[in-house]
Amino acid sequence: MEKSALQKARSVYKPKLPVVMTGAVKAVEGKDTNSVADQEEIKALFPNTYGLPEIQFEKDSAPAKGAAPINVGVILSGGQAPGGHNVISGLFDGIKKVNRESRLYGFLMGPGGFVDHQYMELTADIIDQFRNTGGFDIIGSGRTKLETKAQFDKGLEILKKLNIQALVIIGGDDSNTNAAILAEYYKQINAGVQVIGCPKTIDGDLKNDVIETSFGFDTATKVYSEVIGNIQRDCNSSKKYWHFIKLMGRSASHIALECALQCQPNVCIISEEVEAKKMTLNDIVDYIADVVAARAADGKNFGTVLVPEGLIEFIPAMKALIAELNDLLATNAEEFSHVDPSNRIEWVASRLSDINKEIFTSLPEGVANQLCLDRDPHGNVQVSLIETEKLLGHMVARRLDLLKANGRFVGKFATLFHFFGYEGRCADPSNFDADYCYALGFNAACLIKSGLTGYMSSVRGLTKPSVQWTTGGIPITMMMNMERRHGQMKPVIQKALVDLNGKPFKKFAASRERWAKNTEFIYPGPIQYFGPAEVCDQPSLTLKYEHE
Amino acid sequence: MEKSALQKARSVYKPKLPVVMTGAVKAVEGKDTNSVADQEEIKALFPNTYGLPEIQFEKDSAPAKGAAPINVGVILSGGQAPGGHNVISGLFDGIKKVNRESRLYGFLMGPGGFVDHQYMELTADIIDQFRNTGGFDIIGSGRTKLETKAQFDKGLEILKKLNIQALVIIGGDDSNTNAAILAEYYKQINAGVQVIGCPKTIDGDLKNDVIETSFGFDTATKVYSEVIGNIQRDCNSSKKYWHFIKLMGRSASHIALECALQCQPNVCIISEEVEAKKMTLNDIVDYIADVVAARAADGKNFGTVLVPEGLIEFIPAMKALIAELNDLLATNAEEFSHVDPSNRIEWVASRLSDINKEIFTSLPEGVANQLCLDRDPHGNVQVSLIETEKLLGHMVARRLDLLKANGRFVGKFATLFHFFGYEGRCADPSNFDADYCYALGFNAACLIKSGLTGYMSSVRGLTKPSVQWTTGGIPITMMMNMERRHGQMKPVIQKALVDLNGKPFKKFAASRERWAKNTEFIYPGPIQYFGPAEVCDQPSLTLKYEHE
Repeated sequence: MEKSALQKARSVYKPKLPVVMTGAVKAVEGKDTNSVADQEEIKALFPNTYGLPEIQFEKDSAPAKGAAPINVGVILSGGQAPGGHNVISGLFDGIKKVNRESRLYGFLMGPGGFVDHQYMELTADIIDQFRNTGGFDIIGSGRTKLETKAQFDKGLEILKKLNIQALVIIGGDDSNTNAAILAEYYKQINAGVQVIGCPKTIDGDLKNDVIETSFGFDTATKVYSEVIGNIQRDCNSSKKYWHFIKLMGRSASHIALECALQCQPNVCIISEEVEAKKMTLNDIVDYIADVVAARAADGKNFGTVLVPEGLIEFIPAMKALIAELNDLLATNAEEFSHVDPSNRIEWVASRLSDINKEIFTSLPEGVANQLCLDRDPHGNVQVSLIETEKLLGHMVARRLDLLKANGRFVGKFATLFHFFGYEGRCADPSNFDADYCYALGFNAACLIKSGLTGYMSSVRGLTKPSVQWTTGGIPITMMMNMERRHGQMKPVIQKALVDLNGKPFKKFAASRERWAKNTEFIYPGPIQYFGPAEVCDQPSLTLKYEHE
Repeated sequence: MEKSALQKARSVYKPKLPVVMTGAVKAVEGKDTNSVADQEEIKALFPNTYGLPEIQFEKDSAPAKGAAPINVGVILSGGQAPGGHNVISGLFDGIKKVNRESRLYGFLMGPGGFVDHQYMELTADIIDQFRNTGGFDIIGSGRTKLETKAQFDKGLEILKKLNIQALVIIGGDDSNTNAAILAEYYKQINAGVQVIGCPKTIDGDLKNDVIETSFGFDTATKVYSEVIGNIQRDCNSSKKYWHFIKLMGRSASHIALECALQCQPNVCIISEEVEAKKMTLNDIVDYIADVVAARAADGKNFGTVLVPEGLIEFIPAMKALIAELNDLLATNAEEFSHVDPSNRIEWVASRLSDINKEIFTSLPEGVANQLCLDRDPHGNVQVSLIETEKLLGHMVARRLDLLKANGRFVGKFATLFHFFGYEGRCADPSNFDADYCYALGFNAACLIKSGLTGYMSSVRGLTKPSVQWTTGGIPITMMMNMERRHGQMKPVIQKALVDLNGKPFKKFAASRERWAKNTEFIYPGPIQYFGPAEVCDQPSLTLKYEHE
């Protein structure tokens, strides 16, 4: 594996471990916990792991000597996030510190490798190749969901064969929910295997009172902010384009919000606000068009618009349209397949309810076609394929034509489109994520050594320097509530959407009119690893404002 | 102007000036020069500025004291490139070193500001805000071409009014060609104004035996390599997508080649090779499809493909098709405008020559429509709007369907598309570009002080540490030849396309089969400013291999 100069230089970086973890630790139990909602249902579903106490680690001044080796399995689940390799290297160092004979096994290509017994031992040689690097390529990741008893039993076979006493699942809210179910099951059958989760997702929607952030969010938003900043500088130099920039993040708009706080674009749409205010697509288009027209009146025919990937599904009217489309096309799949392509839109429109028909026929032809044609294996519209940034750009152009005809827009409107997602998911972790992930993994080893199961690794106080962070474990059931999934009520970790009463959104909302009118772009530049602390070691602004 | 932490930290960076420029210099004349071709014609067109000697600066041990102040005007011409602000700050420091009373004026939004007398004085306060930053926003840039005597005369008025004795034009090959014409004209009319050019373009196609590289190429390709590397890491983690990545660079493929050398993708298309080998679009598609199929046979259903933006125009068959389309649609514009949209492709196809008809009808419908519809103000196809990366992706998919039917492809082919351009043009300059640009600007001041005109600022020995670089001036006419432009023979600076016998291409060609088969991705990571020299101060691999 040939390495870049930066990879080589970065491979010797030593994550700054919280002071508490630099020696022996003891697990101090806090008070017993309850789930965030639906306590009775969740308690009934998790009789063996519900209500456990929070754990905080403290220095152990009189540690027991000579602990036995611990064999651990690790799984990377779901989409990539910067820092996954450091969770694994922290975990490796943690169990080796317990006993040099401890072994770490990685299951390949996600939970599927666990079920299918595809694995590799992660030795020091391998771990050292991946310290402080981005990506999940050390063992690969996958989207298989660990949900069934058959999978759990199958996985247990390989755990027993390898004498593994604990499984660490690195994943998002769904994967950690499944980690809790697996922990409960193994406890119930006395399998003798602990299960620990680690909070991963660039989307930033796995967080709550006790998990301050998921790893990867920091790095990914810094990469996006770098390229957005570069585009803004270009925009402000040539002064002739409006850049519509879509940002990854399927449900929550944390990524768009963080990038807006970092870069101060002229417009940023926040899905949660659109939903709360029951905005229509036209409302959003009118808002953007008004900003464009006001800037044009000041002689500024350029600007930037940030759009969260999941926007469409947060527009109540679009949500209703998509739901009716899904029903209509599923029910009439056979008939629809014979409709001449040039008549598809008409065929669909004529079968929709009046209100949805109006919305559907107001969409640009390309998007209407996309809504009819691109369907996932379940027959549903693939919302992530819709080029929302182009949809908005084209609708704003039409709106401006109207304003121009009325003398309310005097200017030019030329657009360029961008989508950033894959650029950030596997970037080399920032110092923050490198330290945070290493601590999460090292801490997972401490939770295992303490005999705990059904816990999520928790590292807190993240706005302080990393040496001051506190570490411990949170019962995963504590974060759960009951939600409807595929028609059934299920226990799931509550997703954290953007809080419209939270400080990050309020900071944004208080400034956006100024950012829209003026050109107050900030250019964050690329992630730095070697420079002054104020450049290299800053957490996200979201985290900072949330904990001010 | 609110600044990011990196901007603040970076603002105090002192570019490492070549040692020769740290004290007084004297201009040492080399031998007289000739244009690279068409000497008689060029000489006739530039009677006053042809054949001048190369200039090299050396330390002056006995400098004259008390030089008069120099007032200079500066223009940013054409597309943005990282480092433009450092050319200007180097120029500022250079003329201030001559005399503290020297003044620098910036013409606003490109050559248009020169003609229209839009300008601002660039004082120390302003310059200090822009040191080591990307973008051209200090005075803006524009694409007005300085070509006519009327423009030259109009510009001269403001030069005289401001008592400006030299104009520095920072631009690409066309802008520097026009700088030479302007220099010749001002010399001819005894205007008393010198004109100096600086080599700018991220495309890297303004270089030759005496200009080693244009500024901006280094930074832009490093930014693109960062995001390509991140995508490759993602690709190698999830192992399920083929990423088709288009890279800016209208004619030459230097950017794609440099990124390939940096990142080692599975496929990189080089336009110059396509043209030299007279490859058809199908040849390219077959080549990519074969790589995909071979990797699939090894169980690898993922990879990366780099595509230069200008590819389409280098495919001889496509070039011929586009030429015939341009003629056809220009001649029949009125009739074509009445053709029903659904019949456009048929209408066009029936009027094309057999050979072009066959190519045209083999194109995906979207691209065929794009070729018919999106035309520039001159009625020509807007090749830059064609989404070549999607065109190739879709055609490769069709080809693989065929191979699959024949049992020659057993795998999956899922695609994702990216285009990188605006992300890199205004990035903060790398140390290389920061130093190079500062030296170019400082050196331009020395050329002005030496009374020269019609010269391009030249800084050489760029693969050595910047303190060892040599500096001087090259007569712009030396780089010229005669070429047909808009039907007329014109003197122009010869564009440097990728040299298929040059070392950068040969290095790539020698490795590409291995890169195609194996997964040998390199992940360069983000530009670093504060770390070890091997990370922060490396020139491009193109430059390195060219001067090995």
